[in-house]
Amino acid sequence: MAKQDRAVRTRRNILSAAATVFEERGYQAATITDILRTAGVTKGALYFHFQSKAELAYGVMDAQGRRMGSVPQRACRMQELADTVLLQTYRLQHDPLVRAGVRLAMDQQATELNRGAFFKDWSVGTTDLLEAAKTQGELLPHVVPAETAELLVGAYAGVHSMSQAVSSYADLDHRTSVLLRHFLPNVVLSSVLTTIDLSVDRGATVFAEVESKITDAYEEPQQDSA
Amino acid sequence: MAKQDRAVRTRRNILSAAATVFEERGYQAATITDILRTAGVTKGALYFHFQSKAELAYGVMDAQGRRMGSVPQRACRMQELADTVLLQTYRLQHDPLVRAGVRLAMDQQATELNRGAFFKDWSVGTTDLLEAAKTQGELLPHVVPAETAELLVGAYAGVHSMSQAVSSYADLDHRTSVLLRHFLPNVVLSSVLTTIDLSVDRGATVFAEVESKITDAYEEPQQDSA
Repeated sequence: MAKQDRAVRTRRNILSAAATVFEERGYQAATITDILRTAGVTKGALYFHFQSKAELAYGVMDAQGRRMGSVPQRACRMQELADTVLLQTYRLQHDPLVRAGVRLAMDQQATELNRGAFFKDWSVGTTDLLEAAKTQGELLPHVVPAETAELLVGAYAGVHSMSQAVSSYADLDHRTSVLLRHFLPNVVLSSVLTTIDLSVDRGATVFAEVESKITDAYEEPQQDSA
Repeated sequence: MAKQDRAVRTRRNILSAAATVFEERGYQAATITDILRTAGVTKGALYFHFQSKAELAYGVMDAQGRRMGSVPQRACRMQELADTVLLQTYRLQHDPLVRAGVRLAMDQQATELNRGAFFKDWSVGTTDLLEAAKTQGELLPHVVPAETAELLVGAYAGVHSMSQAVSSYADLDHRTSVLLRHFLPNVVLSSVLTTIDLSVDRGATVFAEVESKITDAYEEPQQDSA
């Protein structure tokens, strides 16, 4: 048990170091040596958890993804979708692991990684939410959930990149709000729209709500109990 | 005169090689040696036109920008905006120089370049068009041109990145159409909306229209006549 705790701590330590190095240097220029130095672990410890640079990158992206999807189910599914987006913005502004995961997905030079799969994963989660919203009659009749979901994922990725380039994420909350205000009226029934909370502190509120429930994002997925 | 022609040809040749190398390797990993080899010019010829890798990147981005802004003024300014976006999609699918310019602007590892300035340039052009559309009463009253322009630029950049990651731009025309169909109804008066042509072949039609009028994108900006 103590041994497993130590392994979990080491894994977390390595992923956190990898996130820092990937964010600073980009996938292509980052080396396992940089990550070892930043994590302060032995080569053996690192290779016990991750076999390659690509595995480290997938580890960071996967941890990012698990941090993202933790808004509890809402009675209004479109509020749940808005909360997911606002929470992601809050995390991008505050959490280096989330930032590194998204930057890897946007890293055009990370040709070794299947970046398309990450866009697809995000789209699938968003499509599911839109399908659920459609089923309970929250959406305008013309909406095709998969199409709208892919647009939202792509548009958000770009708004995030632009915010990173022009303000190092400082204006991302404003840009996210502009995106949602342009996007939702064309997707959601007016009667539902008036109930959706998009206030400026919503991201922080949702973060406080879910923080206590976060499963440790650095842990190995589907880990068996010892 | 013949001498100047040769200089223009050499400059074009170098920018075209730089575009290829930046697109393949990314800004960080690209070297002037690669670009020299691809262009097949001497070091002296390259340094006569460009002093550094950053200057080469700005040359590519600038040429991209000049290719982009060439839709003639339309009676309906929102048609002009839609045409600019559809033309850009057509060019991204067909022109390596345009692709390289946009990829440099999205290259997170090109920390040496002022990438924010390029997002701002695109936003300024888009804001101008939206201001003009507002002045002639094409827009819904709540629209703030600068805010909507920045959103469109950011969202388009993301849709483009996602298309590149999942389909190497093959689905960019469909994604662009989904973006415009979600975006325009919340910005443009319904009566104007019904007149806007977003048909699938619109990008190709606009390209054919403007092609003959393209000033040579590879030429030096504000070049004095000899």
